[in-house]
Amino acid sequence: MAEEAAQEQQTDPAASRPVRCIVKLGGAAITNKGELESIDAASLRSACAQLRQAMSHGGAAGKVVGMDWSRRPGDPTGPVVDVEGLSEMGGLGLDSNFVVVHGAGSFGHFQASRSGVHKGGLHSTLVKAGFVATRISVTSLNQEIVRALAREGIPSVGMSPFACGWSTKQRNLESVDASQIMQSLHVGFVPVLHGDAVLDELLDCTILSGDVIIRHLAQLLSPKYVVFLTDVHGVYDRPPSDPNAVLLREIAVDENGSWSIVKPALKGNKKGVEISVAAHDTTGGMETKILEAAAIARLGVDVYITKVGTEHSLRALKGDTSSEDWLGTVIRSSR
Amino acid sequence: MAEEAAQEQQTDPAASRPVRCIVKLGGAAITNKGELESIDAASLRSACAQLRQAMSHGGAAGKVVGMDWSRRPGDPTGPVVDVEGLSEMGGLGLDSNFVVVHGAGSFGHFQASRSGVHKGGLHSTLVKAGFVATRISVTSLNQEIVRALAREGIPSVGMSPFACGWSTKQRNLESVDASQIMQSLHVGFVPVLHGDAVLDELLDCTILSGDVIIRHLAQLLSPKYVVFLTDVHGVYDRPPSDPNAVLLREIAVDENGSWSIVKPALKGNKKGVEISVAAHDTTGGMETKILEAAAIARLGVDVYITKVGTEHSLRALKGDTSSEDWLGTVIRSSR
Repeated sequence: MAEEAAQEQQTDPAASRPVRCIVKLGGAAITNKGELESIDAASLRSACAQLRQAMSHGGAAGKVVGMDWSRRPGDPTGPVVDVEGLSEMGGLGLDSNFVVVHGAGSFGHFQASRSGVHKGGLHSTLVKAGFVATRISVTSLNQEIVRALAREGIPSVGMSPFACGWSTKQRNLESVDASQIMQSLHVGFVPVLHGDAVLDELLDCTILSGDVIIRHLAQLLSPKYVVFLTDVHGVYDRPPSDPNAVLLREIAVDENGSWSIVKPALKGNKKGVEISVAAHDTTGGMETKILEAAAIARLGVDVYITKVGTEHSLRALKGDTSSEDWLGTVIRSSR
Repeated sequence: MAEEAAQEQQTDPAASRPVRCIVKLGGAAITNKGELESIDAASLRSACAQLRQAMSHGGAAGKVVGMDWSRRPGDPTGPVVDVEGLSEMGGLGLDSNFVVVHGAGSFGHFQASRSGVHKGGLHSTLVKAGFVATRISVTSLNQEIVRALAREGIPSVGMSPFACGWSTKQRNLESVDASQIMQSLHVGFVPVLHGDAVLDELLDCTILSGDVIIRHLAQLLSPKYVVFLTDVHGVYDRPPSDPNAVLLREIAVDENGSWSIVKPALKGNKKGVEISVAAHDTTGGMETKILEAAAIARLGVDVYITKVGTEHSLRALKGDTSSEDWLGTVIRSSR
């Protein structure tokens, strides 16, 4: 029946309205990397507020309809819901045709690395326990991100890749059922996915990163653009901690997947200049990010990599990175 | 591909090993009904410990492999994981071929009833916000139950019906993809599902109760028995708060779905004696529970309804309710 639903989507013109943007909330951007399971609340709040702004029709900031009606830890008073006011409202006034995918950061990483879940082998008690522990950690982050989005009035729904049946074969995505994601978008919800521990046909289990999920969703949903929010301004020619590091403003990817730096004109720049890929992101490092971003660009979808909580991230979420003073990296197809 | 996986399951003899038990953790049993989003921690802990005992081979209580490696609120120290010990262990020593489904109790009920999610109509801002709020509340309870099971060494994985693509048509289950549940069981995980807000083909959305989920899973998985853990000893002939209420020990369901009380021999007992169905459970009341239990019994699967945290619940989870001093209600087919 899932297949029927997917076919229905294709013939329904309302449903085939393209997704505007897939956003990656990088683990490094929204969690405190040095501290186990610690959210960077200010960054997360800012990302959610900017997402709301980007979704607002004509940029008008309407009334925020808070959708998290749950108790918050330490708050003795229950939630207050203005039932009458909400039932009289015409609509949310949001173009919510976005998908959010987040990384793990300081959630899940500890559990996964201690147990070696990515290497597979569920017959091992350590791996089986680590699989369960990893999922508990990443789904608790997912829950907090869904709540943060809902508090900003974004109708977000958590969708855990393992539970949705996403699985791999030798670490490559094998089975993906995106029909529920499309159904959710169709009725105006914002699906929120995450890097997860999943079953693997050959290894028993492994880790599926948020970046791989994004590439696959970009292929399925053909969004207008993809935004990676991270903790640095974009892709540099060497580790960004190096004072001589240069921010790469534009990278072109050709049909074979090889890339060239379009901006800036680096001294001694030649085709195939090697980008130093420091592992400064907990979920796979900058290398995975560039590879996945290049694969998305090859589909003809522009990718914007920029720093969370800045004016540049807001502009990227709105799809407007054309002005000279925008700070970040654009990766696009050279075609 | 989901369908392929389901077919594979059918031809794989290891996978077709029948599920031993589907357990319903009733909302009334594991939450404090009077208080918004409050877990009855003692009941939940007891239910998880008894589940572990029921899963233990030969009843031997082996070493508990804690699988919740996440921080707990207010606990400044991180989790300690005995990597060496775990990698040397032979196995969990558990027959984990169980499925857990839980109700909502004091989670979700407030959000759903304030917004009228069960009535549908996602064009309404109130209903859309209520859908998001309801899911946040019920998934946070799911997260806590998965963690409680994992702390008892049960390899539990949360699976949210909405995210898994379960949907209804005029409140009746329409689309169900259980292949991931079967895959998870096959590799030794215990799926943990819950009553959820779901999409409805005609109403836009509604509430899918845990009891309906159980009936459907019983049909798909043919478990040896089904256990409903609740806050009273079983089904009574009138509201259990009535001092004259009599616990019905055995109910027989015939092929047409009509039932008769086999035990005890009630004064003036006649076929079709009316069971008073007080709405003393937040998710649909005892009436839904009896109807769903009767539907399961008609499949030839025995249903045990009993009180959480008692010796009777432990015996029910082990499938042993035959002795005279077992306190609870057995609902079975009269065939």
